Amino acid sequence: MDARYLQDKEELKQSAQDVNEDRRAFLTAGLVGGAVAAGTLVASVANAQQVAQAPALTAAPFWPHPKWGKDDVAGASNWITPAKVLDTVKWIKDGKIYRIGRVYESGMPKFGERAFTMRIPGSPTGGPFGANKLVYHDEYLATEIGQTGTQFDGLGHIGIQMGKDGDKNEMRYYNGHTEQEIGGAYGLAVIGIENCKPFFTRGHLFDVEAVKGAPMDAGQEITVADLRSALQKQNMQEADIKEGDAVFFNTGWGKLWLKNNDKFNSGEPGIGLEVAKWCIDKGVCLTGADQWATEVVPNPNKDLAFPVHGELICKNGIYNHENLDFTALIADRKYQFAYIFSPAPIKGATGSNGGPIAVT
Amino acid sequence: MDARYLQDKEELKQSAQDVNEDRRAFLTAGLVGGAVAAGTLVASVANAQQVAQAPALTAAPFWPHPKWGKDDVAGASNWITPAKVLDTVKWIKDGKIYRIGRVYESGMPKFGERAFTMRIPGSPTGGPFGANKLVYHDEYLATEIGQTGTQFDGLGHIGIQMGKDGDKNEMRYYNGHTEQEIGGAYGLAVIGIENCKPFFTRGHLFDVEAVKGAPMDAGQEITVADLRSALQKQNMQEADIKEGDAVFFNTGWGKLWLKNNDKFNSGEPGIGLEVAKWCIDKGVCLTGADQWATEVVPNPNKDLAFPVHGELICKNGIYNHENLDFTALIADRKYQFAYIFSPAPIKGATGSNGGPIAVT
Amino acid sequence: MDARYLQDKEELKQSAQDVNEDRRAFLTAGLVGGAVAAGTLVASVANAQQVAQAPALTAAPFWPHPKWGKDDVAGASNWITPAKVLDTVKWIKDGKIYRIGRVYESGMPKFGERAFTMRIPGSPTGGPFGANKLVYHDEYLATEIGQTGTQFDGLGHIGIQMGKDGDKNEMRYYNGHTEQEIGGAYGLAVIGIENCKPFFTRGHLFDVEAVKGAPMDAGQEITVADLRSALQKQNMQEADIKEGDAVFFNTGWGKLWLKNNDKFNSGEPGIGLEVAKWCIDKGVCLTGADQWATEVVPNPNKDLAFPVHGELICKNGIYNHENLDFTALIADRKYQFAYIFSPAPIKGATGSNGGPIAVT
Amino acid sequence: MDARYLQDKEELKQSAQDVNEDRRAFLTAGLVGGAVAAGTLVASVANAQQVAQAPALTAAPFWPHPKWGKDDVAGASNWITPAKVLDTVKWIKDGKIYRIGRVYESGMPKFGERAFTMRIPGSPTGGPFGANKLVYHDEYLATEIGQTGTQFDGLGHIGIQMGKDGDKNEMRYYNGHTEQEIGGAYGLAVIGIENCKPFFTRGHLFDVEAVKGAPMDAGQEITVADLRSALQKQNMQEADIKEGDAVFFNTGWGKLWLKNNDKFNSGEPGIGLEVAKWCIDKGVCLTGADQWATEVVPNPNKDLAFPVHGELICKNGIYNHENLDFTALIADRKYQFAYIFSPAPIKGATGSNGGPIAVT
Repeated sequence: MDARYLQDKEELKQSAQDVNEDRRAFLTAGLVGGAVAAGTLVASVANAQQVAQAPALTAAPFWPHPKWGKDDVAGASNWITPAKVLDTVKWIKDGKIYRIGRVYESGMPKFGERAFTMRIPGSPTGGPFGANKLVYHDEYLATEIGQTGTQFDGLGHIGIQMGKDGDKNEMRYYNGHTEQEIGGAYGLAVIGIENCKPFFTRGHLFDVEAVKGAPMDAGQEITVADLRSALQKQNMQEADIKEGDAVFFNTGWGKLWLKNNDKFNSGEPGIGLEVAKWCIDKGVCLTGADQWATEVVPNPNKDLAFPVHGELICKNGIYNHENLDFTALIADRKYQFAYIFSPAPIKGATGSNGGPIAVT
Repeated sequence: MDARYLQDKEELKQSAQDVNEDRRAFLTAGLVGGAVAAGTLVASVANAQQVAQAPALTAAPFWPHPKWGKDDVAGASNWITPAKVLDTVKWIKDGKIYRIGRVYESGMPKFGERAFTMRIPGSPTGGPFGANKLVYHDEYLATEIGQTGTQFDGLGHIGIQMGKDGDKNEMRYYNGHTEQEIGGAYGLAVIGIENCKPFFTRGHLFDVEAVKGAPMDAGQEITVADLRSALQKQNMQEADIKEGDAVFFNTGWGKLWLKNNDKFNSGEPGIGLEVAKWCIDKGVCLTGADQWATEVVPNPNKDLAFPVHGELICKNGIYNHENLDFTALIADRKYQFAYIFSPAPIKGATGSNGGPIAVT
Repeated sequence: MDARYLQDKEELKQSAQDVNEDRRAFLTAGLVGGAVAAGTLVASVANAQQVAQAPALTAAPFWPHPKWGKDDVAGASNWITPAKVLDTVKWIKDGKIYRIGRVYESGMPKFGERAFTMRIPGSPTGGPFGANKLVYHDEYLATEIGQTGTQFDGLGHIGIQMGKDGDKNEMRYYNGHTEQEIGGAYGLAVIGIENCKPFFTRGHLFDVEAVKGAPMDAGQEITVADLRSALQKQNMQEADIKEGDAVFFNTGWGKLWLKNNDKFNSGEPGIGLEVAKWCIDKGVCLTGADQWATEVVPNPNKDLAFPVHGELICKNGIYNHENLDFTALIADRKYQFAYIFSPAPIKGATGSNGGPIAVT
Repeated sequence: MDARYLQDKEELKQSAQDVNEDRRAFLTAGLVGGAVAAGTLVASVANAQQVAQAPALTAAPFWPHPKWGKDDVAGASNWITPAKVLDTVKWIKDGKIYRIGRVYESGMPKFGERAFTMRIPGSPTGGPFGANKLVYHDEYLATEIGQTGTQFDGLGHIGIQMGKDGDKNEMRYYNGHTEQEIGGAYGLAVIGIENCKPFFTRGHLFDVEAVKGAPMDAGQEITVADLRSALQKQNMQEADIKEGDAVFFNTGWGKLWLKNNDKFNSGEPGIGLEVAKWCIDKGVCLTGADQWATEVVPNPNKDLAFPVHGELICKNGIYNHENLDFTALIADRKYQFAYIFSPAPIKGATGSNGGPIAVT
């Protein structure tokens, strides 16, 4: 949607005013939750000239991908080779499995208009059948399956409008694919999540909350210096982070989950463009956090909307796992583990639900 | 639904006649796909007296669970202990990951009335936002999330009507829970899939199709003798199957997937009560197959409807993974592997979608 | 769900405590919004002995229907005969159409767990096609179609548990149908909304808000005396209300719609058992109001949950139209009109959405 | 979606080949049912130069609307004035109501990927509550609400790509609105169905099936001469059709409904550009038919895809009601009636479900 258009539409302005209180703080922070939010963005767009200072952002073509090539559709999941699996297995010493995903339930905090609606058809759904009197239940779930709860961002989730607003031929996704190519009412035609390979790799957790001594605040950016402090505190070496590994950030923001959903949704601490560049340089396959976007929201540069998503997912093919829960790992002081997550290969989906685990 | 009632309702009889051709074979085989099928079951019910000969079936209470105790809600996933994980890791020698789940897509064969409907909201869903012109896609999926495609049956999926038809106090589920206790319009109140622990265990694949020399037929039952032939052919020892391991059956029926959905849905080869008892005796944590119910359909005893589901899931808490694909494993002659599957912990769901893997 | 069971389940109690603030007032008023509410009801059930004083409530069988007979499935819509239509047409003098339903939108107040979720697949959904470059949009809507927004209650919506809790053979609906008969995971097998005949009848609006001089409060009951005051104020005769007519109540509660959804959902003014009996005696075909249940919530008798629904819909087959908007009618002082509403005949549904009109 | 792109994608070609048999005839006829169909359209596009001969089609701007003006969003529903209502009431002489919509059910024929999925949550959905032991059912419906079953096309349903494919600024809808303006992931921002006024107008039914002496065939176009034959046969005068009236066409194709859904979906008889122009000249408010598009499919000009939709809805703001059932009207030889239909005002929807009636 073209923000300039919305600026002129009184009806939509009114909608923005009607938005309920729990979204208002979020909106005034310059963020986005669907159509109602777009009006708020207009001020930001007016300041676009400041953006030239943001080093990592560029309008230059980011395709073909320099490592995976022009035809690639799997991005950084290509790092997961047999050698990587064998290297990861060495980290499994206790045999302990940590569930680092959250329970999916209708009361979860959800971004913008997204929904999570489950119904059990009948009670039971069918039966009794046969002389053995079998009965059964199903469950009918309607949701943004890859983008609610513990959500895993695939390559089709994020793109950049490079030409004129509204021109699908110039909305670019990973490896230069355009909206015109990949868009589809019933699923993305290209770079759907079914192309992502399962993750079985070494995971490194940075407990930045512990570094800070308290849960971080919305809008507070994790710096590379913070990561180095965490490494030291956790007795880890930066050199341990190898190409194809996964990195995770604990901010403390996850403590708000189901406790204060409004605040949880209103913004978040997280990584910015500096750490994004560090991740790209390290060659990680995936980032993850205990909050809903991994990156800091709002970005300290108020002109930018989710710029880390653009840098990591769209330009570099690096995946992102959100709304994770590291509580048990941290309690056991386990900062390095086998991260195992195999996305549900839903054809044409932008991401996946699931049950990610850390094994030590 | 009370089959006797349906017997008298002309309108529903007509519905049964209107059912399209691809379901008809299924229905006449005495099986069930929702309301339209119930009429067909009447004849079976009339013959219920024959069932006394089915050794494994009993109306006697099957609770509390003898091993996991009266309060348990995790069933055979309790077998997945640190020791089991460490034992399983020993089988990871090549570092090769096999995706043994299928791609989820709307054209999949689906049981009865189940649906799989995905929509991409907008094109894109949102944006461009910010000076960085970020755009994004979501996907909205509406489906029986735990019971379509590669589907994983949890403990709330299957129960048995033990008292009078329609009395929820006598519909019994795992560990004796009643429909009255666990039923809920918005999710099962007890024994939802969120209670199931992640699987990281040793998997054994029986390629019964290879034993038979050809894909098996609908209604053809896999016997214990077949399993022993497969063990011999595959150079495996029965003693290798330890408590808490998972067992998988390849029937060849999966070759029909997306090729002939009507035939695929019309029935299937699979295990019967004999192999079910063998599985219970072995103490497996999970069964799985390349077809949609693991068990043979129709059962050779025409009076029974999905009796193996009742024995394994409901009475013994043993999980079941359906619509798997063993093609690549078989091509590589890999019959033993680490089976890794962590269900999406959807609160109150009967099962889970996902991306199960076999690692060798 | 058996409230006694829930009483013992700590987890569900916790759920009840986690319910967000906007539902709390509603729950403490002794009302119900799904599983989380059931715990709160326990106290009410304990006081059940007081109910003997509520004259209109009885456990005695209310079937077969004395007027429409034992096989009827259309209830009070049977009043809409050609004679009734011709009698109604006489009231169309200006040719003016008033839309008395509300716009359906996701921000509407919704009862309990009900949802209203719409997505536009793609942008556009399809095309361009042909040399004429046609494009098109669809919309995908997932909702409790008959029970969100301006909602029309059909005969399958409301029943009464007459025997032991959980016994479907003793849950009784209109004309004595049992849950065991009518229940179905994919639609009600009997008395679905498709059996309801279109309404084209004389409508009488009682502006009780005007009688009171201000919007009524939650829990405030409309009495027969109030109705008579309204008749006088509006220059109408009680004798004008004939069998098969529809009656509507304006309480002022509708002013909260989209303005204060939390308060709107927290309860409401409306009719009680006295006016319900008056409606039954008059032989009306339908009741309606500017709030979400037509009846007063909570009922002045705290032991009763939505008793008017039971009396009108379940026992007498009288329909109910909720969340109407009489603003324009009242502004024009039009209290009598042709009420025209033809439910969408959704097979097996409990109600219907739509666009009801009043024509003068 | 850009057909030229699809032409090069082997995977999608394969999808087109995998489409099931019942859609194949439809596709080879050069029509469209979603992504899988686009490949088939390529040949048509190559022949686009022939289209210059199609008189009614033009790339010239069709906005602002000459009668309703540049700001109008209600189109031909503006014809429904008090005078029109009073004129229509004169046709109500018997008081007989004919339901001319079909029952909505999951087994209905559906276009392309559209779905109709209903679930009853629980059994019952809630209760028993209170000492009065109230229980209730809801129904959860997920569907293209305005575009399944008896479907009513609003102004946001149909547009024309006028500039470069994929440029939302040049996809034009009624009154010149662009996709960029009206598109929205959660509902159309402009010209949603909530802007359409209720219909209460004179309806004229043309029983072309009777003129032909048999049900018409797919691809058979209704001509103006056919309409005149019908008028004569039915003792009606062409001059009777006034501005703002509705016209309906019975082709006999509706006899296939639920009887042969595959054939029903494979194409249809209907009106072409000649009758479309006649309708525009007459100033009708709405067209309708007993089939799924009112217009002939495939169009005799194979280069054109649903051109009548473009002419009537997009360029002229004339509404369209599909999948109607005139059986009872024809049996009673009632060809002129009050057509009453008030769309459900679903904000941002492209159409509406409902229960249209004809009153005589």
